[in-house]
Amino acid sequence: MSRLVEVTELALRDAHQSLLATRMTMEDMIPACEDIDQAGYWSVECWGGATYDSCIRFLNEDPWERLRTFRKLMPNSRLQMLLRGQNLLGYRHYEDTVVDRFVDKSAENGMDVFRVFDALNDPRNLKRAMEAVRRTGKWAEGTICYTTSPLHTVDKFVELAQRLKEMGSASICIKDMAALLRPQPAFDIVRGIKEKCGEDTIVHVHVHSTTGVTLVSLMKAIEAGADIVDTSISSLSLGPGQNPTEALVEMLEGTGYTTKLDKSRLLKIKDHFAQVRPRYADFESKIVGVETEIFDSQIPGGMISNMESQLKQQGAADRLKEVLAEVPKVRKDAGYPPLVTPSSQIVGTQAVFNVLMGRYKTLTGEFADLMLGYYGETIAERNPDVIAAAENHAKKPSITIRPADLLKPEWEALDKAAKALPGNEGADEDTLTYAMFPNVAPKFFAQRAEGPKDPCKGAAPASTAPENPGSKPADDGKGPIT
Amino acid sequence: MSRLVEVTELALRDAHQSLLATRMTMEDMIPACEDIDQAGYWSVECWGGATYDSCIRFLNEDPWERLRTFRKLMPNSRLQMLLRGQNLLGYRHYEDTVVDRFVDKSAENGMDVFRVFDALNDPRNLKRAMEAVRRTGKWAEGTICYTTSPLHTVDKFVELAQRLKEMGSASICIKDMAALLRPQPAFDIVRGIKEKCGEDTIVHVHVHSTTGVTLVSLMKAIEAGADIVDTSISSLSLGPGQNPTEALVEMLEGTGYTTKLDKSRLLKIKDHFAQVRPRYADFESKIVGVETEIFDSQIPGGMISNMESQLKQQGAADRLKEVLAEVPKVRKDAGYPPLVTPSSQIVGTQAVFNVLMGRYKTLTGEFADLMLGYYGETIAERNPDVIAAAENHAKKPSITIRPADLLKPEWEALDKAAKALPGNEGADEDTLTYAMFPNVAPKFFAQRAEGPKDPCKGAAPASTAPENPGSKPADDGKGPIT
Ligand SMILES: [Co+2]
Ligand SMILES: [Co+2]
Repeated sequence: MSRLVEVTELALRDAHQSLLATRMTMEDMIPACEDIDQAGYWSVECWGGATYDSCIRFLNEDPWERLRTFRKLMPNSRLQMLLRGQNLLGYRHYEDTVVDRFVDKSAENGMDVFRVFDALNDPRNLKRAMEAVRRTGKWAEGTICYTTSPLHTVDKFVELAQRLKEMGSASICIKDMAALLRPQPAFDIVRGIKEKCGEDTIVHVHVHSTTGVTLVSLMKAIEAGADIVDTSISSLSLGPGQNPTEALVEMLEGTGYTTKLDKSRLLKIKDHFAQVRPRYADFESKIVGVETEIFDSQIPGGMISNMESQLKQQGAADRLKEVLAEVPKVRKDAGYPPLVTPSSQIVGTQAVFNVLMGRYKTLTGEFADLMLGYYGETIAERNPDVIAAAENHAKKPSITIRPADLLKPEWEALDKAAKALPGNEGADEDTLTYAMFPNVAPKFFAQRAEGPKDPCKGAAPASTAPENPGSKPADDGKGPIT
Repeated sequence: MSRLVEVTELALRDAHQSLLATRMTMEDMIPACEDIDQAGYWSVECWGGATYDSCIRFLNEDPWERLRTFRKLMPNSRLQMLLRGQNLLGYRHYEDTVVDRFVDKSAENGMDVFRVFDALNDPRNLKRAMEAVRRTGKWAEGTICYTTSPLHTVDKFVELAQRLKEMGSASICIKDMAALLRPQPAFDIVRGIKEKCGEDTIVHVHVHSTTGVTLVSLMKAIEAGADIVDTSISSLSLGPGQNPTEALVEMLEGTGYTTKLDKSRLLKIKDHFAQVRPRYADFESKIVGVETEIFDSQIPGGMISNMESQLKQQGAADRLKEVLAEVPKVRKDAGYPPLVTPSSQIVGTQAVFNVLMGRYKTLTGEFADLMLGYYGETIAERNPDVIAAAENHAKKPSITIRPADLLKPEWEALDKAAKALPGNEGADEDTLTYAMFPNVAPKFFAQRAEGPKDPCKGAAPASTAPENPGSKPADDGKGPIT
């Protein structure tokens, strides 16, 4: 008797976010929904991450309408979203009642499974969102961002899982956005969680395929007891995306594990996305095949191209090697944050500044905030000398409290400002859109009635470079790979 | 203490044969040789397969000169080749003394490891070549072609390994050209071989990556005790090629297994081939990403495109589905041959004939030969009714003896004919070139002095279609993926 391994399909969110700059339109997803709904997945990730931003910025689609459509077209499926804790889908911390409203509205519009994470793995940044999800009766999945550093041991990840479990996680996600999770730690962490949190703890493993090793890691995670794994249909898989769903199914054939996926449905889903993908050629990631250098450099490919662009704009394209060598030092000084949005941009930009202007001679505002605790706690102590420089630069003290505790109630003000915008339809959903993307929302509200726009018509190739080296990673229109 | 896993690098042979229609020139390989020689591989596959044919047909390179150059540039490496048993590198059976001469000359020019296989897994077709290799003191690797069918059980493969061991194999290769080897059978076959042939039996695993599951299969093979595995550098990997060497190295990190490969050398090799690969864009395989349908259809992608072309030429492009349904029937009638060159073409073409003209109303000469035993023995009994039709069509009896036993000594005649050609330089090597490629050798000898030609200049895109549906798979200029 084989043990059942459940599967989350990523085609409708992370796959096209990672491979096609989050540009897939609802129109190109709708025809696949019935097959996805019937294929036997545990859940269908289809919302959150960068899709909300992309909807209003590039596609002139109302993200809430997208969610409702998915709900209608996939009545048998758990819909799943990616939520950046206290950041929601934006790039700053929100006051708790805004978090509550966002979760309420998402649940109301049809969301079932909330994967909640924080870029620094600071559980305090997950807590309010998790509580909100539990209050709605939906599935709260506490998430560990996987990374590597001298401090990131198996025991530390298992400890974090225990904290998430205590916070009421219905399942624990191990999220490996950079494809750094090798087979042995995959096994060890899953095993550790099962042993420390109880064998009945549901472990959900999310890996990308950039380094080429992570299908093996899924195998090992499954052998260690992982309950649910994330994959994407083969025609939207590999490279900086994820492992192919069909390969997972075939890999398990003959082992003591099995999925309950319907291969004939998978074939239809594959064929559909194989057919629409060429429309997005302008947005294709330039990373194809396999890149293993990140295991040593610790620097995700997308981060390297950002730094390259910044250097080029400063006429210093020849100094990339120095910057690459600087990144690990900056990361260490900052307490070894995982390199994921926004920490990857913050660390990368500061490394560029250090090389061009001298180490910590100039700090970006974001880096100062990171050093001073305004993004949350890091796993390691931060360098006190750099903290002092940051205090001096930012003219504010370092903090140890939860960053959102500094915020005053803000819903009323956001709601008032949002409702004043032409085209606002008066719903809380619009206020949330404005709250998360105040620069984009006005144009979106004004144009919404024109309906979806095809991003592939006359589209310029996607740029991964922010506008200037010190520019906020926030609100930059490039979906992070998560 | 980790167990050492040895690695064979495929970049110089199978990788570009699978991905770039075997077109890579010596000029583009030379700069990588020093790094390959120093990287710590167990062996470097760099000759045989379709490279010989490609050298004389497309590149105006003397394959023997290529071998000598590799020998000189990689003095510390075992050079490895792929040899199709009694077929050598050609497409018919050769008389034993021709086999002996080929092996002698290959050894003399620098070859170390001879991977010897037969498309039907008939050990009698391997025997003479294996003996010849052993006589030269070189490494004879007996090979099992992996395939799936009701008859191809783990026990049957282990039995075959036992026969190859008895024939004096220095190592046993499990060769999975179609990427059909799932993790569990990979484990079971390797374990079975170790248990039945002795734990000290060296097991060498060769897999392609087409279906996306075979890096996991390598992991399982290693866990079962596999000693050597085949990979190709990442910039010449994946799709119908092989798993990336760097991914193998990283996958094993932290496990009880390790390679002794030098990662800084691998990075240089990667960068070199990443730089030259775009030159061969016209020859890129159209298969990219992952294709798992073969697990059910049993029909390799290359075979489907061949059949598509054949149908199109007959104005019957709409009948592909019928042909795909016919293939498993033809394969069963033929005793379940592995679908690899030349059996894949023979079975595929007969399936096309069956659909267009009625089942077995017309037989190709090759299919009749296959049914009558002229290619060797198959694992299952062949359909007696179809054997009768084949005897009737071919006007010859079925045989059970080793096919090459029918051949008369032929070296003198080949030698004489070869030496009569303008441009022949009088060496046995030229006679072997003529013996294997009688249609191409005359032109090659005549043009040889002009030196290497760049296949990428004014090249027409590679066609995978043979000239007509009944054309011999032999000598068709398209390298089989093996
Ligand atoms: Co992701
Ligand atoms: Co091969």
